[in-house]
Amino acid sequence: MISLGANTFTPTTPVWVVGTYDHEGRPNVMTVAWGGICCSKPPCVYVSLRKATYTYGNLLERKAFTISFPSEEYVKEADYFGIVSGRDIDKFSTTKLTPVKSDLVDAPYVKEFPMILECRVIKIVEIGLHTEFIGEIIDSKAQEGVLDENKMPDVKKMKPIVWGLTNMSYLKVGEPIGKSFSIGKQVAVEKSTHDN
Amino acid sequence: MISLGANTFTPTTPVWVVGTYDHEGRPNVMTVAWGGICCSKPPCVYVSLRKATYTYGNLLERKAFTISFPSEEYVKEADYFGIVSGRDIDKFSTTKLTPVKSDLVDAPYVKEFPMILECRVIKIVEIGLHTEFIGEIIDSKAQEGVLDENKMPDVKKMKPIVWGLTNMSYLKVGEPIGKSFSIGKQVAVEKSTHDN
Repeated sequence: MISLGANTFTPTTPVWVVGTYDHEGRPNVMTVAWGGICCSKPPCVYVSLRKATYTYGNLLERKAFTISFPSEEYVKEADYFGIVSGRDIDKFSTTKLTPVKSDLVDAPYVKEFPMILECRVIKIVEIGLHTEFIGEIIDSKAQEGVLDENKMPDVKKMKPIVWGLTNMSYLKVGEPIGKSFSIGKQVAVEKSTHDN
Repeated sequence: MISLGANTFTPTTPVWVVGTYDHEGRPNVMTVAWGGICCSKPPCVYVSLRKATYTYGNLLERKAFTISFPSEEYVKEADYFGIVSGRDIDKFSTTKLTPVKSDLVDAPYVKEFPMILECRVIKIVEIGLHTEFIGEIIDSKAQEGVLDENKMPDVKKMKPIVWGLTNMSYLKVGEPIGKSFSIGKQVAVEKSTHDN
């Protein structure tokens, strides 16, 4: 193994669009890579933000956010949302995407994206350059067209993107290669066969 | 948008293998989906664990962990690491994978996986069913064979996997579809062209 230093290297990260209202009620969106699910009960998700971002102030004030998950076709918009600041620019207007006011939390989401989460901030954790905002997930919503026959969001239909930060590229999500809590059982079988 | 309830639905999650030593110094690994980078300076990563897991106790005691990122060829082993408990089973022995003792932190990593992080726990956040362990990344390491010409880990060579939890499937990572902090600039160009 080659040492690469104290870096935030993971093979892929999320590409998540965080929706908030500012003090004047204007909808804003910002793309983050530092985010993830952090608890199952209550269902919670976090995003980590620098204090310098416009979204940071919005979150402190409104204590609510959404996460909209972009599909492949919106990769340009997702990148753009991470380049410019909502202080200067109305990002919905420039991208011609549509803010929808959540019925459940005080934040807007992106109508055109296939799946979203609506969250209330329940904990704020100071770490260093970034502050972690932990939100309880009040509801998850998906476009009808991305649901499978079990009414579950189908990853192949959502066409999500991930970020390969070590190569500074967005990537598609590819083919399924195994069922979870299932394919691993072969390890035990192979072991016992080998032991016989 | 169709309401799907208060669920931890994201299109994809990490498939990360957390390495720890137990109280007797035995190496253990556990696969988690609740994990992510949460700060750039200091570089920090978290994993969220249920108190019932063996890794939870190891982390409380040792205050150190590694994350090993599996490649496609180890999808079975990664799933297996999330199915069985280190209380009962020596997971390295059953999978014939190799624990390597980190020189920097009190935890083992998986030799066969293409990239790893070595971390010291700096903060423990109680949320609910899951507890978040935030670790400072002391070093990142990769196998020489997955580095690109800039000595950066190449996502195409690492062949990472993600979890599509709404379909209970592991998925490959696909083709790059745009450069970050770059492709989004087209939005502004298109806007100004349209305005002319």
